[in-house]
Amino acid sequence: MHNPLIPETLEGWSLLHLMYRVRWDRLRGQSPEILSRLADEVRTAIGQPEAGATAFVQMLGHKADLMVICFRRSFDDLAQAQLALSRTELHESLELTTSYVSIVELGMYDMTAKLHEQVGARHRPGSDEFERAFDAEMETQRQRVMGRLFIDVPAARYVCFYPMNKRRGEVFNWYAESFERRAAMMREHGMIGRHYAGKVTQIISGSIGYDDWEWGVDLFAQDPVVFKKLIYEMRFDEASARFAEFGPFYTGVQFSASELERYLAGSVPALLA
Amino acid sequence: MHNPLIPETLEGWSLLHLMYRVRWDRLRGQSPEILSRLADEVRTAIGQPEAGATAFVQMLGHKADLMVICFRRSFDDLAQAQLALSRTELHESLELTTSYVSIVELGMYDMTAKLHEQVGARHRPGSDEFERAFDAEMETQRQRVMGRLFIDVPAARYVCFYPMNKRRGEVFNWYAESFERRAAMMREHGMIGRHYAGKVTQIISGSIGYDDWEWGVDLFAQDPVVFKKLIYEMRFDEASARFAEFGPFYTGVQFSASELERYLAGSVPALLA
Amino acid sequence: MHNPLIPETLEGWSLLHLMYRVRWDRLRGQSPEILSRLADEVRTAIGQPEAGATAFVQMLGHKADLMVICFRRSFDDLAQAQLALSRTELHESLELTTSYVSIVELGMYDMTAKLHEQVGARHRPGSDEFERAFDAEMETQRQRVMGRLFIDVPAARYVCFYPMNKRRGEVFNWYAESFERRAAMMREHGMIGRHYAGKVTQIISGSIGYDDWEWGVDLFAQDPVVFKKLIYEMRFDEASARFAEFGPFYTGVQFSASELERYLAGSVPALLA
Amino acid sequence: MHNPLIPETLEGWSLLHLMYRVRWDRLRGQSPEILSRLADEVRTAIGQPEAGATAFVQMLGHKADLMVICFRRSFDDLAQAQLALSRTELHESLELTTSYVSIVELGMYDMTAKLHEQVGARHRPGSDEFERAFDAEMETQRQRVMGRLFIDVPAARYVCFYPMNKRRGEVFNWYAESFERRAAMMREHGMIGRHYAGKVTQIISGSIGYDDWEWGVDLFAQDPVVFKKLIYEMRFDEASARFAEFGPFYTGVQFSASELERYLAGSVPALLA
Amino acid sequence: MHNPLIPETLEGWSLLHLMYRVRWDRLRGQSPEILSRLADEVRTAIGQPEAGATAFVQMLGHKADLMVICFRRSFDDLAQAQLALSRTELHESLELTTSYVSIVELGMYDMTAKLHEQVGARHRPGSDEFERAFDAEMETQRQRVMGRLFIDVPAARYVCFYPMNKRRGEVFNWYAESFERRAAMMREHGMIGRHYAGKVTQIISGSIGYDDWEWGVDLFAQDPVVFKKLIYEMRFDEASARFAEFGPFYTGVQFSASELERYLAGSVPALLA
Repeated sequence: MHNPLIPETLEGWSLLHLMYRVRWDRLRGQSPEILSRLADEVRTAIGQPEAGATAFVQMLGHKADLMVICFRRSFDDLAQAQLALSRTELHESLELTTSYVSIVELGMYDMTAKLHEQVGARHRPGSDEFERAFDAEMETQRQRVMGRLFIDVPAARYVCFYPMNKRRGEVFNWYAESFERRAAMMREHGMIGRHYAGKVTQIISGSIGYDDWEWGVDLFAQDPVVFKKLIYEMRFDEASARFAEFGPFYTGVQFSASELERYLAGSVPALLA
Repeated sequence: MHNPLIPETLEGWSLLHLMYRVRWDRLRGQSPEILSRLADEVRTAIGQPEAGATAFVQMLGHKADLMVICFRRSFDDLAQAQLALSRTELHESLELTTSYVSIVELGMYDMTAKLHEQVGARHRPGSDEFERAFDAEMETQRQRVMGRLFIDVPAARYVCFYPMNKRRGEVFNWYAESFERRAAMMREHGMIGRHYAGKVTQIISGSIGYDDWEWGVDLFAQDPVVFKKLIYEMRFDEASARFAEFGPFYTGVQFSASELERYLAGSVPALLA
Repeated sequence: MHNPLIPETLEGWSLLHLMYRVRWDRLRGQSPEILSRLADEVRTAIGQPEAGATAFVQMLGHKADLMVICFRRSFDDLAQAQLALSRTELHESLELTTSYVSIVELGMYDMTAKLHEQVGARHRPGSDEFERAFDAEMETQRQRVMGRLFIDVPAARYVCFYPMNKRRGEVFNWYAESFERRAAMMREHGMIGRHYAGKVTQIISGSIGYDDWEWGVDLFAQDPVVFKKLIYEMRFDEASARFAEFGPFYTGVQFSASELERYLAGSVPALLA
Repeated sequence: MHNPLIPETLEGWSLLHLMYRVRWDRLRGQSPEILSRLADEVRTAIGQPEAGATAFVQMLGHKADLMVICFRRSFDDLAQAQLALSRTELHESLELTTSYVSIVELGMYDMTAKLHEQVGARHRPGSDEFERAFDAEMETQRQRVMGRLFIDVPAARYVCFYPMNKRRGEVFNWYAESFERRAAMMREHGMIGRHYAGKVTQIISGSIGYDDWEWGVDLFAQDPVVFKKLIYEMRFDEASARFAEFGPFYTGVQFSASELERYLAGSVPALLA
Repeated sequence: MHNPLIPETLEGWSLLHLMYRVRWDRLRGQSPEILSRLADEVRTAIGQPEAGATAFVQMLGHKADLMVICFRRSFDDLAQAQLALSRTELHESLELTTSYVSIVELGMYDMTAKLHEQVGARHRPGSDEFERAFDAEMETQRQRVMGRLFIDVPAARYVCFYPMNKRRGEVFNWYAESFERRAAMMREHGMIGRHYAGKVTQIISGSIGYDDWEWGVDLFAQDPVVFKKLIYEMRFDEASARFAEFGPFYTGVQFSASELERYLAGSVPALLA
């Protein structure tokens, strides 16, 4: 039942961020042939490109050495990818330190208001006709933004990932604000993002029901200073200043799957064109 | 002593959620015969169906690879199930990462008010007659909802589990609200759930005195997007927006006990009809 | 110096809760003779009954498999018990996951007020005579409640343990409330407990200065549902609703020391009469 | 530059609390000769008494089995002590679970006010003469309390250690209170301590800039009940009730360095006169 | 787009703090030749001085034995340094316990206000001319402070590192304060730092988007008491008292890379001129 107080969402890729510590002592003495075999097995495990994409990121700091982001069509495909990775030979030299489960999501504050108005003008809200017409409009929207729901992995060197919540504090509580106030704050928030268009690509995924925060945010850029400037500027808008809660931040350099053996051999791997 | 300020509850299955990391490196080389023997031993350990049911879930992410949910008649039976699982040969390749202890619970706000009114009309509240009559009415209710107290494991592919509290904040404190306010908020909360009838099956269990949160929530559905939409929509009702505190979220795909060796051998296991 | 704002307390057993994970893989193949020898050594380590009692609990969930509660005459005796357990052969198959250090305590709000009034009527408060007379009255009280200070381990199957604090929030601060308000709230709180007399036995221990929470609570009952109903009902009284903070909850089934080898051999052990 | 809003402090011993789990399975079979050699090496590592003192404490509970408190002249001497302990043979049977870095500190609220008044009467505040005269007065104070800054390890059996902060809440914020209010609260707080003179010895150390809390508190007594009564009573004074935040609490029995081999052999070690 | 509400920042070194536990049991028996070889390999891994500097710190307490701070030109260079260190032979005796990722940052409250005024007087704010002129002025500033952005590692014995946030509380929220208020508070805050000029060197780095706190602070001094006095005094200024949140604190003694083998051999290493 479409509810005018709840922003509609559209869903795309199922996402699984897997973060691993590498046990370098087990890899240090290995021959190029062995490292190549380990890397080949991983590439086979993550499967054919048509099944969805997979990003590799060399991480900075102790939280993880390697992040693998799986973009898949379903939770079953995520289960398949995680299980296949867990059963590779390389996995004996990996330790899964953390992860994140989510689904690419487009939140549609403005569209929700618009559709309730338009469809409500034609049908009685809550009636079967209303619901069917609303669903049809949502499907139209879905087709329109299919490229964003099933986005290609951005071909940028630097990656930043963090989860976040909207605050439910005793004074400032996002979920107790009116739809209009929330929509206005999201609009202001989106405006800042637009100033960074071309410099940073953002993928928002919803994780309510799947993981410990409400949303995951992936940012991709060719200059890591952009992450700091963008998030700092956003921290001053009302939606963030008053209502955002941030989880841990992860950062690193993206590389091509074909560079995996170079990484295992101790060279910083490249992101090939 | 029945207290008109305290909602009555009815209790069903004793529940134990056990979440394990699998040490895949120890299983990788094993023959189908060995994996089958390991799986058989686990099925024997969890016992005969009449003793209660057991659900298996392949989890997504680092929190666990495998969740086993034991539905049993008593804490002694839970103790028996956990001990038997701990002593299987497969347990050498498992690491228990987390767990949850609870008892299936039906909270009865409306019934509590009604029974205090009805029984109070016949007997002096607090008198032995009152207490006996109230107990008898509760037993009638219990018989009526026996199927929900001792529910079958829902035959749905996707599972979501999370624990939660009612907030006892310095401004918003569930336990300092009047019975009527609480009952009204629970009614509104239940209404949203009803819109998802047929799409999701929910099992609420109480864990006050047993585990670190007040309730555990298990959701089962044939489409994982339903979890996100249901919980997101509920987050805007007053009971949740103002008063809910959520613990970690766990999600995965349910599978049949008979599929355990396929899982151990590296295939995503199916939920057989 | 006796202070009319501070409730007097009487102290009994020194308590040490020790919670262990069992490494079942190390015990699985052992012969009955070896398990019996391991259990004998543990019983010797915990010492003679006159030195104090020791309770054994098979726990549910991942926090611990086995809880050993030592009731002793002094911290030195606790140190002796922990050290002796740590040096048993069985300890090689145990991992100490958590613990709690406390001293059985009777808080005496009403008695404190009464004694200050009575003794203050005879001697100038703060004078040496006052202090000596007050001490003598406290000793009389101590003799009167000796059986509760040095209580026998309740012979009930189910055990629930949790630590708790009185809140020192910025709005609700127990330690900034008047003595009279605190005394009244404790009286109401005690009243609820009294409705459960015969169904549950409670042991309160103080841990200020010894462990991370202010008090430890042990509940013993013949039906675990009683824990849930008692604590839930208490959560609505003002002392708990406004001022209680709860730590982790632990639960399990108590068993007799003589049943230890049966437990190690994989059977749920009994609590013998 | 001496600032009349900031209480002056005087510094003594550099302190390092090192808390270890003992791997008893590695020590259990060892001969008295070997345990004696291990203990001798530890005593050599902690060095000559003139370099500062070292206290040994057998701890209760899972947080640590053994606490070593190093009192030294400088951070370099602490670095030396920790490194020497880390390189002993016994260290192979120890696991450092936690620690605390601090410097013995006397906070001087009343003296600060007095010196600003006295020195300010002779020199213009902030002038070089003022600063030099103030420094000279502080040096005089330092000489006067040298025995407390470089205190002997109290020869009492029971030890309690905990770190703490002054709250910087949104309502109650110690650092936003006036100097006079803070001084008055510290005076009241000190008064309670004085009632316990002779029963407990307290060592306060400052850890701002060194560790995760602002102060460390070590209490030594001949009866552990004194810790509970003292800290409970203090919890009602305004400085604690409104403004104190407490970290984890650690407790145990102090013993003499010469008793170390007896402890390693499984006997509760004594504190020799 | 330059925004008058957001303080401009200038960026310098990319920083990676790596904190390791040393497994002393693996190093204890090693010959001087082997320790020297291990140290040489580490020095090679961290590379040539022109690529950036590297500081070594022997830490106090359990959080880490050894901290390595990498100052590099880019995140790729940090990735290179971490990977090279991870692949040394010494790394088999190290355990990475924690880390911090950040970029040296100069916050420019006063300059931001000044440039908006000056450039705004010449060009319409938001216009391309405005943006270009503003960028040019920022570049001028950058050239002027190049020595602070790419600072030499301060040659002081004692090091203190901690991360921090500006509070976003429900009452006190830094990001909801006006630019002028924030600028005034930062000015007051800076004033205190200036009184410690010559005694302590401070390096601020920004970590929004990179790590779990907003800023990292490194302090270097010849007397560790200075850290305590400086941070304590600052805790009373409004920017800190009301708005600062502090993470864990780390402290230790800095030493020269050439002293690494002496450290591995058990001597406290020196900071050579």
